Amino acid sequence: MKESMLALVYRGNHEIGLEERPVPKLRDPRDAIVRVTRSTICTSDLHIRDGFVPRAKTGVILGHEFVGEIAEVGEGVGNLRPGDRVAATCETFCGDCFFCRRGYINNCEKGGWELGCRIDGGQAEYVRVPFADRGLVKIPDSVSDEDALFLGDILATGYFGAELADIRLGDTVAILGAGPVGLCAAECVRLFGAGRTVLIDVNPFRLNLAKERGLADDLVNPAETDVEEAVRALTGGRGADAVIEAAGGKNTFQTAWKIARPNAVVSLVALYEEAQVLPLPEMYGKNLIFKTGGADACHGPELMRLIEAGRIDTSLLITHRGPLNGIMEGYRVFEHHLDNCIKWVVTPPEG
Amino acid sequence: MKESMLALVYRGNHEIGLEERPVPKLRDPRDAIVRVTRSTICTSDLHIRDGFVPRAKTGVILGHEFVGEIAEVGEGVGNLRPGDRVAATCETFCGDCFFCRRGYINNCEKGGWELGCRIDGGQAEYVRVPFADRGLVKIPDSVSDEDALFLGDILATGYFGAELADIRLGDTVAILGAGPVGLCAAECVRLFGAGRTVLIDVNPFRLNLAKERGLADDLVNPAETDVEEAVRALTGGRGADAVIEAAGGKNTFQTAWKIARPNAVVSLVALYEEAQVLPLPEMYGKNLIFKTGGADACHGPELMRLIEAGRIDTSLLITHRGPLNGIMEGYRVFEHHLDNCIKWVVTPPEG
Amino acid sequence: MKESMLALVYRGNHEIGLEERPVPKLRDPRDAIVRVTRSTICTSDLHIRDGFVPRAKTGVILGHEFVGEIAEVGEGVGNLRPGDRVAATCETFCGDCFFCRRGYINNCEKGGWELGCRIDGGQAEYVRVPFADRGLVKIPDSVSDEDALFLGDILATGYFGAELADIRLGDTVAILGAGPVGLCAAECVRLFGAGRTVLIDVNPFRLNLAKERGLADDLVNPAETDVEEAVRALTGGRGADAVIEAAGGKNTFQTAWKIARPNAVVSLVALYEEAQVLPLPEMYGKNLIFKTGGADACHGPELMRLIEAGRIDTSLLITHRGPLNGIMEGYRVFEHHLDNCIKWVVTPPEG
Amino acid sequence: MKESMLALVYRGNHEIGLEERPVPKLRDPRDAIVRVTRSTICTSDLHIRDGFVPRAKTGVILGHEFVGEIAEVGEGVGNLRPGDRVAATCETFCGDCFFCRRGYINNCEKGGWELGCRIDGGQAEYVRVPFADRGLVKIPDSVSDEDALFLGDILATGYFGAELADIRLGDTVAILGAGPVGLCAAECVRLFGAGRTVLIDVNPFRLNLAKERGLADDLVNPAETDVEEAVRALTGGRGADAVIEAAGGKNTFQTAWKIARPNAVVSLVALYEEAQVLPLPEMYGKNLIFKTGGADACHGPELMRLIEAGRIDTSLLITHRGPLNGIMEGYRVFEHHLDNCIKWVVTPPEG
Repeated sequence: MKESMLALVYRGNHEIGLEERPVPKLRDPRDAIVRVTRSTICTSDLHIRDGFVPRAKTGVILGHEFVGEIAEVGEGVGNLRPGDRVAATCETFCGDCFFCRRGYINNCEKGGWELGCRIDGGQAEYVRVPFADRGLVKIPDSVSDEDALFLGDILATGYFGAELADIRLGDTVAILGAGPVGLCAAECVRLFGAGRTVLIDVNPFRLNLAKERGLADDLVNPAETDVEEAVRALTGGRGADAVIEAAGGKNTFQTAWKIARPNAVVSLVALYEEAQVLPLPEMYGKNLIFKTGGADACHGPELMRLIEAGRIDTSLLITHRGPLNGIMEGYRVFEHHLDNCIKWVVTPPEG
Repeated sequence: MKESMLALVYRGNHEIGLEERPVPKLRDPRDAIVRVTRSTICTSDLHIRDGFVPRAKTGVILGHEFVGEIAEVGEGVGNLRPGDRVAATCETFCGDCFFCRRGYINNCEKGGWELGCRIDGGQAEYVRVPFADRGLVKIPDSVSDEDALFLGDILATGYFGAELADIRLGDTVAILGAGPVGLCAAECVRLFGAGRTVLIDVNPFRLNLAKERGLADDLVNPAETDVEEAVRALTGGRGADAVIEAAGGKNTFQTAWKIARPNAVVSLVALYEEAQVLPLPEMYGKNLIFKTGGADACHGPELMRLIEAGRIDTSLLITHRGPLNGIMEGYRVFEHHLDNCIKWVVTPPEG
Repeated sequence: MKESMLALVYRGNHEIGLEERPVPKLRDPRDAIVRVTRSTICTSDLHIRDGFVPRAKTGVILGHEFVGEIAEVGEGVGNLRPGDRVAATCETFCGDCFFCRRGYINNCEKGGWELGCRIDGGQAEYVRVPFADRGLVKIPDSVSDEDALFLGDILATGYFGAELADIRLGDTVAILGAGPVGLCAAECVRLFGAGRTVLIDVNPFRLNLAKERGLADDLVNPAETDVEEAVRALTGGRGADAVIEAAGGKNTFQTAWKIARPNAVVSLVALYEEAQVLPLPEMYGKNLIFKTGGADACHGPELMRLIEAGRIDTSLLITHRGPLNGIMEGYRVFEHHLDNCIKWVVTPPEG
Repeated sequence: MKESMLALVYRGNHEIGLEERPVPKLRDPRDAIVRVTRSTICTSDLHIRDGFVPRAKTGVILGHEFVGEIAEVGEGVGNLRPGDRVAATCETFCGDCFFCRRGYINNCEKGGWELGCRIDGGQAEYVRVPFADRGLVKIPDSVSDEDALFLGDILATGYFGAELADIRLGDTVAILGAGPVGLCAAECVRLFGAGRTVLIDVNPFRLNLAKERGLADDLVNPAETDVEEAVRALTGGRGADAVIEAAGGKNTFQTAWKIARPNAVVSLVALYEEAQVLPLPEMYGKNLIFKTGGADACHGPELMRLIEAGRIDTSLLITHRGPLNGIMEGYRVFEHHLDNCIKWVVTPPEG
């Protein structure tokens, strides 16, 4: 193993840049060192760069969505060996604390969102992963690195959004936002027995792609149509049986609860920049349920089984690829959705 | 059966008054006529009087919480016979529609909150109850009318608040509000396995009564203590495992989510007069669940079984009684909590 | 409407035959008369003929799986009108009793399996259906009669088997029996998030058909392979996460629990002719769950939504068709699986 | 810490006896050594002695229900320190494997029932406990050793039986067996909202004790009454809503399903010496659910919270006490229920 490596660093002050950094070493018996084979750029990386994530530390290596190969494991790691191919969970979790025991790993007392935020992440050649037995999921031989790449973050989040929504047999589910998380949610809602998916976004490319790939039955573009009326028309006037809000726009919270039928769950997996108004008197009697927050990404092994079985397929998200040394260009293209970019995949450095 | 009867009428314009009205008759085969033996005054009656319930109709007889004796049933009523003692559900529900089949009876396509709001209610000598097989629950011989009196409204609401809260074995539950609904919720949380109940109210009489009757383990008075600090101290810094908001005060919504631990349910059964602020960025990662609304009061038969078994006892709520012809005095005492009034029970007219 | 009609009658003593019978009339306000457009022959019809169904009445018209058009409705029927196309639920249920309120409609105090068993059924030109609002599900315009034909019996049973199995995300589900119910179960398990389906049967035609139609991932033929070993090999030695027993053979009960992993559900939807041995000491610590019985077919509307959405497709079951006047030939072909018959569909009488 | 200690050893061939043994030492970083302050004798100890537990090892120190004080912990133990008072879980579980992650700790791939069966147990002065962070639950200051003593075995089992039973609000629960497990189940059913408990046993002392302590509403003695008739009479002819079989007698399995109403759960937590007959044709349509097995004792922390809150109280079980050096007398008294013995508690050796 070499001594130093290339890594993308958050320098504070809205600045990020490539740097040469020491290859990480084991610190705790439950750590593993992973050689990164694929990572991604995520909207949350932009949020860190722009100062919207108070917990992020200046100087940290970014990247919380990656797969790779085990280079080294600590003595306390039981299930992984060097050479194993693994997908990382974006959250670090001990598995033992009050919250972990209930599956609330996003609030792990010793973890939560650490990688690429408070400890060095995966936009690098190597990364140290704490509690490796928990956070790393083995990739079976029949699954490629890219098939498994989104398991630990956006797929986990899309799944979480669908899980929260309490979907029942044959339900009509409305999804606000056809970005990476919304598309993953669309992939997952049918695992819960949904009958029909209504996908809502202003981006016609993404909407059409979703429809072509069988991820949406009905498309609604708020730039062209009144969303409330459209959903009402599609549901016999009743509203959607469940709503997943993965857009986080100015008005999407209000739209979300208005298109929901009475007694629906509104699953809020978007990250909002501002507080929202909850008009309780206006919605009284509608008996809505709002579920908020960041994915409790504890279903990695189960999601991997579904990828292996061919029941989850996220390949449509990969529109662009480039090596680590060209990652700055990746940020530019991804941030502005240039060339219809959905996800930019980072490959090992070249040249 | 006589021809006319005494009834308390909502006259619009913040006015209510006793009037002589015709005794109601069957209109539909599924109706029953009930001779009212006990009814109550409820905060919602004050809301109607004061113009806060847009669906309420001028001229309606008030009262949606009552028990009585079946006087007459329509041909389509299968389970009830004249002479049966019954408790009424505050909601009218067909049992057949999309919402009823899922237990969402508050949104019944042919009902919802009708009695004492859109059709004549129970602050009268007789009342017509539609879909009687659904909305009327037989009272067993061993249960008195007053034991069963709250089954269909405040007990159903307290139960609903507790049910929504997804209480798990040994949980610490915080209840905001020691009014009739909060006290009923305190009665119910232990049916779901709660370990400890923290009751929060500014009224020392109600707090102490609850404690004496075993309905609360810990009392917090916001007039004396910082509620957030107090709950944190009682829960090892973690927050309450579940929160039931039954107060509906100026700041109680904000308090409710702040005293909840991460991944808790906040059950909002209070009626708010104003929209609330939902500070999603501030609470991001806390993964809270908010459940809103009016009771889906579909568990009448089950609640009756628990009353019969002695596992639910609402007798502490009955602080005052008076005949229908004195109901105006009841409104005055109940509204201003005079003489520590919790519930004023209306008995048949006298003299 | 004509006065008499053709119908297949159970004459007792292992005998059935076509007869001319009066067209049924409404008897109760909640009845409907349905003109049958398609019905089927079911294994249970053979069980009645052969005397294995004690509740069956001599002289009854057979047939409990059918679709048709509403000819007439009673005054108490709210949701259906003459001309409506409907699918029938095999169970008659009031919707009001203790069992119906919990969804246990197979034990309805006023119903259960009545049609084609204790009251005249659908292997006829017309049929009277009690509690029509409950038991008849409207067929949307985009769904053909044959698409909806199995909704009320074998699809409901396959769904019930899958529902009982408590399938979790990515689970491997083993299904014993690739007959009509087993194939319907295979169709349904993915609605609950199953990852992989292992289908077990001695009939290679049915196994291969299931695989071709995407209903099974792995096939096991007990005539060729040791089933326990095969399932163990497919599951890394652990056993199936859930087992649905839809075969009802001599040894299939024992096979079912043996191929289940610890803490699995074994869903027993087959009809057994003999008592089984439950070797509790031998299975101690394996913590299995056995769920027994006949479908609680209460999800008709939801299943119809999934048929409409294209997420359930039972067309592979229809291998044969013939008019009511040729139904005796249908029994012969269906009973002996001649010409690879899976289901024989009965069309209206001809000529 | 001294070098050797007194311990009760299973010598094979139906023989047990007190021996001097070395005090155990840490072997793995996740181990703890516990100084035993209280242990118990359990029916399972008799089963081992009598050769009914094939997994038990000759030479093992018996005892799987005990509390004590931490004497020493391995480096990998995070939550416990010497001096902490702890209750032990009867099952050893890693918390990481497929089964542990789902709560099925009885089938832990690295554990299960080990203590006092395959590794040395707690009828001794000291005991080594593997995976100490998982299997040991801290006892709060306000809870005595004896209050917490049954947490890890019979209370966990009684709780498990109640949990399996899927009790719903107000249900009537029948419990077969008023032994230690049956009484613990009676203690727990109300945590799930049961309305009424029917306790069935031939031992009048135990029945009456349960009733006096408020653990049973109705008593049925099969020596005096026909159990099926009695339960039918108590439930309006319908049968019990849930049945917990904690007796394991000759006919108790048959009684269990016969006293259950249709669609009930029959929770089988007894240990049977013989295979049972499952008369599926006879019970067809009754749609019963049978849940089998040994406790998944994963709710230790939650049960401790309920003990601390005073909502679980097992003090009625402790009828006898004696020091470790007199344990042989304890076995004699406990085995034959002499002097109405329910549980014999073993205190540290004396003299």
